[in-house]
Amino acid sequence: MRITRELAEFVAATPSASIPADVRRHMVRTLVNWAGCALGGAHDPTVTAARDALLPFMGPPRATLIGHADKVDVLHAALLNAISSHVLDFDDTHLETLVHPSGPVLSALLALAQHRPISGRDFIDAAVLGVEAECRIALGLGKAHYDAGWHVTGTAGVCGAAVAAGRALGLDARRMAWALGIAATQAAGLREMFGSMCKSLHAGRAAQNGLSAALMAQAGFTSSEQALEAPRGMARVMSGQPDLARIPQGLGTTWETLANTFKPYACGLVIHPVIDACRELAGQGVAPDAIAEVVLQVHPLVVELTGKPSPATGLEAKFSVFHCAAATLLDGTSRHSHFSQACVGDARIAALRDRVRAQVQDGMRADEARVIVVLRDGSRREAYVAHALGSLVRPMSEDDLSGKFRALAAEALPADRIEPVLRQCWAIDSSADVAALADALAGPASHSLT
Amino acid sequence: MRITRELAEFVAATPSASIPADVRRHMVRTLVNWAGCALGGAHDPTVTAARDALLPFMGPPRATLIGHADKVDVLHAALLNAISSHVLDFDDTHLETLVHPSGPVLSALLALAQHRPISGRDFIDAAVLGVEAECRIALGLGKAHYDAGWHVTGTAGVCGAAVAAGRALGLDARRMAWALGIAATQAAGLREMFGSMCKSLHAGRAAQNGLSAALMAQAGFTSSEQALEAPRGMARVMSGQPDLARIPQGLGTTWETLANTFKPYACGLVIHPVIDACRELAGQGVAPDAIAEVVLQVHPLVVELTGKPSPATGLEAKFSVFHCAAATLLDGTSRHSHFSQACVGDARIAALRDRVRAQVQDGMRADEARVIVVLRDGSRREAYVAHALGSLVRPMSEDDLSGKFRALAAEALPADRIEPVLRQCWAIDSSADVAALADALAGPASHSLT
Repeated sequence: MRITRELAEFVAATPSASIPADVRRHMVRTLVNWAGCALGGAHDPTVTAARDALLPFMGPPRATLIGHADKVDVLHAALLNAISSHVLDFDDTHLETLVHPSGPVLSALLALAQHRPISGRDFIDAAVLGVEAECRIALGLGKAHYDAGWHVTGTAGVCGAAVAAGRALGLDARRMAWALGIAATQAAGLREMFGSMCKSLHAGRAAQNGLSAALMAQAGFTSSEQALEAPRGMARVMSGQPDLARIPQGLGTTWETLANTFKPYACGLVIHPVIDACRELAGQGVAPDAIAEVVLQVHPLVVELTGKPSPATGLEAKFSVFHCAAATLLDGTSRHSHFSQACVGDARIAALRDRVRAQVQDGMRADEARVIVVLRDGSRREAYVAHALGSLVRPMSEDDLSGKFRALAAEALPADRIEPVLRQCWAIDSSADVAALADALAGPASHSLT
Repeated sequence: MRITRELAEFVAATPSASIPADVRRHMVRTLVNWAGCALGGAHDPTVTAARDALLPFMGPPRATLIGHADKVDVLHAALLNAISSHVLDFDDTHLETLVHPSGPVLSALLALAQHRPISGRDFIDAAVLGVEAECRIALGLGKAHYDAGWHVTGTAGVCGAAVAAGRALGLDARRMAWALGIAATQAAGLREMFGSMCKSLHAGRAAQNGLSAALMAQAGFTSSEQALEAPRGMARVMSGQPDLARIPQGLGTTWETLANTFKPYACGLVIHPVIDACRELAGQGVAPDAIAEVVLQVHPLVVELTGKPSPATGLEAKFSVFHCAAATLLDGTSRHSHFSQACVGDARIAALRDRVRAQVQDGMRADEARVIVVLRDGSRREAYVAHALGSLVRPMSEDDLSGKFRALAAEALPADRIEPVLRQCWAIDSSADVAALADALAGPASHSLT
């Protein structure tokens, strides 16, 4: 088995024309989703704390810090934009592995596009091949890897970023194998950090270290050429039950990029079918004041992961199915502003939240839910969701993605700049130089931090 | 168990006066050894490849790149100086864990001393506490961690660097726990990389990421406060058999810093007793041309780890006990120049190397050896070494360390600057500002790369 080498040869040598059009288009959707998330998260304290700490050490300010007026150096742009894009827990998800692929890959690539020119076509090729490598390495690490406590977006992510950057740099197969090795030996990220700023740091370092791995390999920095499969390589050291055959399986035929999904709501996926059902009920005109009780019939994981009855912070609210149901019934839909401190403390939401209870249904799937509203007059309304919006069988439409982008972009861009930037994202494949998009993602001068 | 917090409190709050004088003096020896190694490795292609790749992204050039004329930014100085200090495999070793403690810790601290003033006394305090944290975390990860394939200098190293930098920055216990967490969640380094440039990258990233972890914690970047001991924390995720109780055991009473050892020879420790015996034989006046055969009686590990009969490169020569024995018998001692390409190809050494054979002795300790030389006239000479020089029971003297420094420093400094710099290292404890030592470790203008 020469898996590292086989993967390196594939990502280095696959012609652009061999990547199917639907795969390329799904990567454009991924870009729209990622750019929106990065704009929405750009002013999170996680981003500004990291930026402030590292500012005295930054190099030439040539790369966009998304949503900010000031540029930073290319490596720190990769770091900070990946943090921004992951910090709202609103980015893309490869469901089988729970990798959030684009934070590492697209953040590394966009920063690199401000170091050397990359056309839209080459950018999408590199992004697809980076995401393929990332998701396949995650499949190779197996479920045991995540279960043991590794945050796979950090560990597989650094490899994906290295491949994407290496492809854009035109590395040959040998140097691509070095880039993979330099990345693999920096793979890190503990799930213990969930709930702290370090969670999105994992995506950030994956982007930054993956990008630098490709640049170092280009400069002749060597690594093992069996980094993934060797007895002391990444898969065996970091997983009790690796499945190495998954890495090359179907390369060039099956595209994991197509299995990447987008979240319509800024909270854990298991809550999403409940939100869909509450949106439907709100659309039926259920008046919140008339509600006596809300019963959520859900998969057991929903209560296990998101059973917090009275969240005290925005982050805790993401782990409260009760909060999400109440806010959606009151507001008609779920918004990322529902996970703000102001919303958590809102008396109307708190009052309704206290009237929501969950009933675990053993037979239900995780993307299925039923919500029953009992009104004060004794009548009932009910909504049933077979598959949540954003699941593989019911993906977000391109219009849905544009709507999500608009809402998130409003956090960082003036209203009149949102549509032009959104059009640039959708048109990336025909861009002559992706640096133009990077420039467009900068924030206005009023968002300067210095 | 609140191990992260207990360790954080100890390293944040221990008064300088509570660190025993012999512990402080051993850290000064560690500095002399580390500075010599970094000067000796400064122009290794590993350092220059990393530097060339990252140069376009570097920040304000305020920190010394040891052995070079040009400065780099503080974070990249930590990275590159740690690579330099580890690349010759000649740095210090904490024998129980196989951690090479000073690369991460002292590289981070020296770079920080060019960002804000640090007195010699504070520098030694921070270094001791960083090494204590590093070695204790390595003890907590247990033998299973290294055996599984982790390079513990990378994994425990990043925590040690974070603690050392955090102490110098004056972090309180809570922020010190964050610094430990930010570091722990970046812990990385695979033993698969041994033999490639990535091996010393592990020490480099440990220094750089540990330093940035402390700076980020200072700026309010949060992490879990149970990074070491939590069910999904570093020890349980990265070791099949952690021994968490070892981390706080005897804190403030037992000092792992005193168990740090220094290598007299630039190759694997298991070869050292053979070299000692060969030096003794060479000192007896054995003429190399008169030698018919050399028999090495050694511990089984010697052949397992260093049994390469005909090395082709300098790196392979470090894993050839035959090469080391031949070169020492010919040259009277072992020099790091023996691991150059020129020496590997030297016909006289190759001829003698072919006449060396090893006999495994099951009863021997790893730091014990007997070498028997059979001369062409049939007579025999024999030398027996009970404990290798550099072992815990037979440590290198301060004169030995000065000699090692002089030989290594000659690789990067003009002859007339070696003694003044060596004196500055020995006198660090009374330095008003360690930045002066950092300045002194810069190379002459003729060693400028730009």
